[in-house]
Amino acid sequence: MADVDSVVENYIASWNETDGDRRRTIIETTYSDDASYLDPLMEGDGREAIDAMVAAVQRQFPRHRFELTAGPDHHHDRMRFTWHLVGPNGDGPVAIGVDFATLAEDGRLRSVTGFLEPVA
Amino acid sequence: MADVDSVVENYIASWNETDGDRRRTIIETTYSDDASYLDPLMEGDGREAIDAMVAAVQRQFPRHRFELTAGPDHHHDRMRFTWHLVGPNGDGPVAIGVDFATLAEDGRLRSVTGFLEPVA
Repeated sequence: MADVDSVVENYIASWNETDGDRRRTIIETTYSDDASYLDPLMEGDGREAIDAMVAAVQRQFPRHRFELTAGPDHHHDRMRFTWHLVGPNGDGPVAIGVDFATLAEDGRLRSVTGFLEPVA
Repeated sequence: MADVDSVVENYIASWNETDGDRRRTIIETTYSDDASYLDPLMEGDGREAIDAMVAAVQRQFPRHRFELTAGPDHHHDRMRFTWHLVGPNGDGPVAIGVDFATLAEDGRLRSVTGFLEPVA
């Protein structure tokens, strides 16, 4: 049973891991078999599609990093947390997101819905 | 097809409507047949259970009112918004919540997940 803090830590790590093999391993640890991701700009249905989506974001924002800035806040099988995407020198954030997720019975992510906050 | 702003407006109205018949009518307009609600303290599975849950909150907080304070922010079939529960003289808020919801194909609420913010 994955605990919520580890799941979110691994989720953020998957967005930052640019080595494809290591990223796919993290994604398998973090997402359930039937996982899906949906935000205003992107979607991924299944772990393979999620991995391709993350790789595309990494190509679009080279040397940027995702950082957890609030949460996770968790009850039942639901959680939310906030992240910042910061530039190569820690500048930014260039994007701020609030993610809402539901968890599978084994504690891994079943669905993630991303929302974007305005960036100053 | 219910539009997102109307759905949220009716959702807030349902929490404020203390007349049982009128409240149940609003809930039928606002929630799909298979709707469910879940927050850290309460849950309701189906419209009848949701109505009973709302009535219980109204008994616990007489003459209080729910107010929409941010959103709805919406993409695909997902949305989020923020509400305050204020006292009889507009005092408070005594509670602040962030709700995440998924929509049915006809635009009504299919599932609502509530999270509570710290209150000063």
